[in-house]
Amino acid sequence: MARTTGSDGEKTEAAIREAALELIARLGFEAMSMRQLAGQVGVQPAALYRYFPTKEELLYALMCEHMENLIASWGEVRPATGSEKERPAGRLAAFVENHIRFHLSRRNATHVSNLELRSLSEERLRHILGMRSQYEGELRRILADGQSDGVFRIDDVALTAMAIIQMITGVIVWFRPELRLSEDEVAANYHTMTMRLVGAET
Amino acid sequence: MARTTGSDGEKTEAAIREAALELIARLGFEAMSMRQLAGQVGVQPAALYRYFPTKEELLYALMCEHMENLIASWGEVRPATGSEKERPAGRLAAFVENHIRFHLSRRNATHVSNLELRSLSEERLRHILGMRSQYEGELRRILADGQSDGVFRIDDVALTAMAIIQMITGVIVWFRPELRLSEDEVAANYHTMTMRLVGAET
Repeated sequence: MARTTGSDGEKTEAAIREAALELIARLGFEAMSMRQLAGQVGVQPAALYRYFPTKEELLYALMCEHMENLIASWGEVRPATGSEKERPAGRLAAFVENHIRFHLSRRNATHVSNLELRSLSEERLRHILGMRSQYEGELRRILADGQSDGVFRIDDVALTAMAIIQMITGVIVWFRPELRLSEDEVAANYHTMTMRLVGAET
Repeated sequence: MARTTGSDGEKTEAAIREAALELIARLGFEAMSMRQLAGQVGVQPAALYRYFPTKEELLYALMCEHMENLIASWGEVRPATGSEKERPAGRLAAFVENHIRFHLSRRNATHVSNLELRSLSEERLRHILGMRSQYEGELRRILADGQSDGVFRIDDVALTAMAIIQMITGVIVWFRPELRLSEDEVAANYHTMTMRLVGAET
């Protein structure tokens, strides 16, 4: 994607991305126009196209950034090799907590990434799904390790990974900060449910 | 909604609904035009408006039908009062199996119902969410009964109900009939995971 140098260009691009996530999450990708987006950012429509030559490139850039950030966030909290927490139960706890916190702090980007895949061209869709698969592969490895260590009771690793991903991503559908439970309480509850789901002692 | 009498009118309306589900699931509600839909059904655009005066009324009708069918399907399989299967574990098994089979057999309607809520007006959205809440209330009651009978280990009934709903609805995101697992095997696997998640003996 085109990227102008210098801090003004970067600030404008960041402003475009943020406004686009908000508008797409609210209206849907098809319903949002580049003109509307330019108005929201406070620039001329032509300026948008310097950063994102097509509307689909904008969507793709947003989805790439979301997946790259998700994979990076897991890299940061992943328990160190050889540590006590690196055992399957500790890694699973870290994975669930990071996944929930990451998505709760990026609701718009999560909605866009989950709802707008159909608007990507085939090749770009494949790239996004490849990144997803890489990320979900981390979870599958945790589950398989716990299964072979005998600490998890799992009938089907791939199915269990999908079930957990969908369960923990679903938090953003209903969680509102003003509700009776805090983010910490929600994360703790989902951690307990996940451990039970994989048949680990809790 | 307008409903012409006689079987021709009913057949046309059914054809419109089916074509609309397919087009909306594929293109998105905002991207689909009534003209495109008329072309798909093989009628004049004006004919569509006899059945669905606005595009939003069409969407609302599709979502209402989906939720009414879901609630009715649960009514049909719900274990009889006083029967052995009416105990919480039997009811939960029936709920999970029905939910998965219902959604797998109605993928387009499920996608439309899950992805297009933002295009409903406030009052209609409230009505759809009310029906959802009624349906999810059935699951919450099963979980609460199992909790008070001491057969389920559940920390938070509402949270657990959301987790289960999202886990089992998520099946339609990845399940393809040509994959290695049959619908029966998938349903059985999700039943086992659900029972573990609620801490029931399996």
